[in-house]
Amino acid sequence: MDDRELLQIVMRIVGKDNCADDCAVVPCGDLEMVITTDMLHRTTDFVPGMTDWQAGWMSAAVTLSDIASMGAAPKYLLIAVGLDDWKCLEGVMQGAKDCCMQFGASIIGGDIDRHNELTVVTTGLGLVDKDHLVRRTGARPGDLVCITGTPGQAQAWLDGYLQFEKALFEPQPRVREGQMLGRAGVNAMMDDSDGIALSLYDLMSVNGYGFALDSQKLPLPVGIPPGHALELALYGGGDYELIYMIDRGKFPVEGVPSTVIGTVVAEPAVTVDGRPLEKRGYQHRWE
Amino acid sequence: MDDRELLQIVMRIVGKDNCADDCAVVPCGDLEMVITTDMLHRTTDFVPGMTDWQAGWMSAAVTLSDIASMGAAPKYLLIAVGLDDWKCLEGVMQGAKDCCMQFGASIIGGDIDRHNELTVVTTGLGLVDKDHLVRRTGARPGDLVCITGTPGQAQAWLDGYLQFEKALFEPQPRVREGQMLGRAGVNAMMDDSDGIALSLYDLMSVNGYGFALDSQKLPLPVGIPPGHALELALYGGGDYELIYMIDRGKFPVEGVPSTVIGTVVAEPAVTVDGRPLEKRGYQHRWE
Repeated sequence: MDDRELLQIVMRIVGKDNCADDCAVVPCGDLEMVITTDMLHRTTDFVPGMTDWQAGWMSAAVTLSDIASMGAAPKYLLIAVGLDDWKCLEGVMQGAKDCCMQFGASIIGGDIDRHNELTVVTTGLGLVDKDHLVRRTGARPGDLVCITGTPGQAQAWLDGYLQFEKALFEPQPRVREGQMLGRAGVNAMMDDSDGIALSLYDLMSVNGYGFALDSQKLPLPVGIPPGHALELALYGGGDYELIYMIDRGKFPVEGVPSTVIGTVVAEPAVTVDGRPLEKRGYQHRWE
Repeated sequence: MDDRELLQIVMRIVGKDNCADDCAVVPCGDLEMVITTDMLHRTTDFVPGMTDWQAGWMSAAVTLSDIASMGAAPKYLLIAVGLDDWKCLEGVMQGAKDCCMQFGASIIGGDIDRHNELTVVTTGLGLVDKDHLVRRTGARPGDLVCITGTPGQAQAWLDGYLQFEKALFEPQPRVREGQMLGRAGVNAMMDDSDGIALSLYDLMSVNGYGFALDSQKLPLPVGIPPGHALELALYGGGDYELIYMIDRGKFPVEGVPSTVIGTVVAEPAVTVDGRPLEKRGYQHRWE
């Protein structure tokens, strides 16, 4: 049993629409408010060697990334911290606060709990004009498939390429870029936190269209043998780049360094160089 | 080290104002939006014998209670579920959904995580007219101190009085009452989830005034020896009644069954029958 299979259970109970995007969307005066929540914890997310400050930073960053992927500006963060050791709290809170400050948000509330391992749940709220909100749906055949930055770096550290520590330990959500892409009118967007492959399968399931990637175009982490680098870029998790679909005529968006990695196709299949892309990446699993 | 001591660390980092109420408050068009987050988990919150459905219900209820205590109407809930056993998910989600539906809210998003014990973090959002928002601050000497319902029942179950199972396992947040009290213009309010005693000490620390309780007036759980029943009512946690301070002339508020248990006094001390009330109740502790 994995995340995506469990999501089917959730969809049956709360409705498909409430599981479709990186954030929920509710009206807020003349604006749209986007809201998202993420649970991270020591065993699976805060790898050995990370400081408490980095655990706090990462917790905020993953949530701000979801807000960015809707084209919204992050405004507020709530943070629930489950602590086995109370001495972690100060570092975690300071890391979360510093990440919020860097990206224009502030911490407005939270909860403290005793837990058997450090567990951090961040809830982020952002605002966006109705016209600039971007969802996972909206991709159309012929659109370019683009990505910001260089995917695969976080997984590269996990595979022993220690020069990529910063990518995994202190992810930089694409907050500025997300809003610029929203204003530029991209058609669909999400972040690639579970890897490009799984993200594209998620996008295919809500759009009904497929994606044809060209492996030659994929930006790859440098200093890694090409075969392994491609594997990392396609299937590695822990990155917070934005994958977006945009009308051919609107690319490039000024101020948002990106790479075209493929196109949207009518047939619902995800391919790379004409061959099916494997549906795997970062997933939780249960027996 | 306990919750309240750790909160001092948090206040230094995120500011005192962001830790002062049961919910954070942000503007939302012409209304105020209130937001709160709570972490619950198997070891400390979901007692043996509770069903998954009840764990989900309780998780939603504690968050809706925080919204009620601001005088707001609950609208939306996000739920992050950390699962050791995936088979819990359906019951937890259904319980949370049923609680939301009963009190006028809906589940709009969430997260699924693998964890070493069932951990549920609910984030609730509510709306309220600016004029009807109630905070913990605003109490004035001479105000009546009132409480809804009968406190101490949840703790009574934990102490072996099993007729109170429903109070602990399926708490009923005072959502309707909270909004009626807000519209009636009560001066200050919070829920008593950590017990009356700790709640009054929390209220004293933000108001600067004290509280004089009359033990004869406290409604007590029935069928329990009086001494023990008073102990439960003052110090027991796990209840979700509303404690509020109101002008003498505004009491009672029609449609909100409540009991006057004391008065607000100028001297910053919490007393019962003229003697200092112990500062204890439901707290997490760390070595």
